[in-house]
Amino acid sequence: MRQAFHALSIPTSGKGLYEITRELRAWLSNEGVRDGLVTLYIRHTSASLLITENADPDVVKDMAAYFERVAPEDGPYIHDAEGPDDMPAHIRSALTQTHLSVPIEKGALQLGTWQGVFVFEHRRDPHRRGVKLHFIGE
Amino acid sequence: MRQAFHALSIPTSGKGLYEITRELRAWLSNEGVRDGLVTLYIRHTSASLLITENADPDVVKDMAAYFERVAPEDGPYIHDAEGPDDMPAHIRSALTQTHLSVPIEKGALQLGTWQGVFVFEHRRDPHRRGVKLHFIGE
Amino acid sequence: MRQAFHALSIPTSGKGLYEITRELRAWLSNEGVRDGLVTLYIRHTSASLLITENADPDVVKDMAAYFERVAPEDGPYIHDAEGPDDMPAHIRSALTQTHLSVPIEKGALQLGTWQGVFVFEHRRDPHRRGVKLHFIGE
Repeated sequence: MRQAFHALSIPTSGKGLYEITRELRAWLSNEGVRDGLVTLYIRHTSASLLITENADPDVVKDMAAYFERVAPEDGPYIHDAEGPDDMPAHIRSALTQTHLSVPIEKGALQLGTWQGVFVFEHRRDPHRRGVKLHFIGE
Repeated sequence: MRQAFHALSIPTSGKGLYEITRELRAWLSNEGVRDGLVTLYIRHTSASLLITENADPDVVKDMAAYFERVAPEDGPYIHDAEGPDDMPAHIRSALTQTHLSVPIEKGALQLGTWQGVFVFEHRRDPHRRGVKLHFIGE
Repeated sequence: MRQAFHALSIPTSGKGLYEITRELRAWLSNEGVRDGLVTLYIRHTSASLLITENADPDVVKDMAAYFERVAPEDGPYIHDAEGPDDMPAHIRSALTQTHLSVPIEKGALQLGTWQGVFVFEHRRDPHRRGVKLHFIGE
C-alpha cells in the first residue's frame, strides 16, 4: 500500500468549465497505479470541481448558464470586496465540490463513459487554479 | 491494511430517491471490515448520490419536488438531445453528489441515526445505475 | 500506513456557519500525521459541512442568507414534523456536503490560504453536532 501526491496548476480565462480528465489520467498512468482511490482537492473558494458530461459541449454551456441564473451577480450580497462576481463565486463553489474521490480498479479510473472531471471557474478574470491530487492504494 | 471493491447495479423506474443503505451494509458485513473508509461512486451524469433522512418518506418526496422546482425541465437549455429531462438531470447531479465517503469504526458504518444513502434518479425512463464501492482499511 | 479516528461535538446556537478548522488542525497535529487524507463526516441530515472563505465574516453571512432564499422556510413542503425549518434543513444539507476529504502533505493540511472548514447549522434551535474524523496515511 502506498500514497502519491501531485499538484496541477490549471490556467483559466474567465467563467466556465475546464476539463482536467486528461491531466488526471496522465498522472495516474505515470504513477503506474493499479487499485485505489484518487482524491482531487481544489485550494480555492471561488473555483470548484465538478464531474459532468463531457461528450456534448452544450452541457457545460448550459451548466455555466444555470449557475449564473441561480446565483446571480446582482444578488443582495454584503461581501463584494473583489467585485460583483466575488460572492456568487463562493456560493457556486458551495453548491458544487471542493473535493472529488474516484476509485481506480485494475488500473482503470472508474469514471463512467460520459463523465469528465472539470475545474469550474467562477471568476471573470484569468487565474491559475491549484488542484491537489492524492492517491492511496497499490 | 487492505482494499475491497464491489459494484452495485441499482434498477430505477423514473425520477426519485432509491435507498441503498441495506445493500451497502450487506457488502461491508460480508467483507468483515472493522475500521476504514468506504467510498461510493456513481458512474453517471444524470443520476447522483445523496445522504438524507430515511425515517419519514415525505422527506424524499419533498426533496424530489424541490429539485423539480429549482432545476425545472422547462429551463432555457441548449442541450436536449435526450428530451426535456436531460439537461436538468445533469444540473441536479451537479447540485448533489457523484461520490460519498463514510468512515467505519469498530465495524460500524458511521451513518447518523436518521441518515440513509440514496441513488437520486433524475431521468424519467427506467435505468440501471452503476455504483462502485471502494473500501480501504482493516 | 495507519488510521486514526476522532469525534468532534460542535455546539450550535441557531442557523449559520461555525468554523471548525482549528479543531481539525489541533487533532491532526496531536496525531502527528505527515502524509495522508483526512475525511470529515457529519452524522446529521439538518446540518452539513462546507469549505468556504474564512477571512471576511461577511461571506458566511451572505452564504447563510443565500440558502434562506434558495431553500426558504415557506416552501411547499409536506414534511414539517419538527417545524418550518425542518425540510429546508434537509434541502440545504443536500445542496452542501455531508463529508469532506482534504489531503495532508508533509504535515500540512492542504487547505488554500482563504479556506476554512465549517459546520453549517440549518436548524433554529441549539444542537450539538457530531462530526467524525478519519485519517489514513503515515
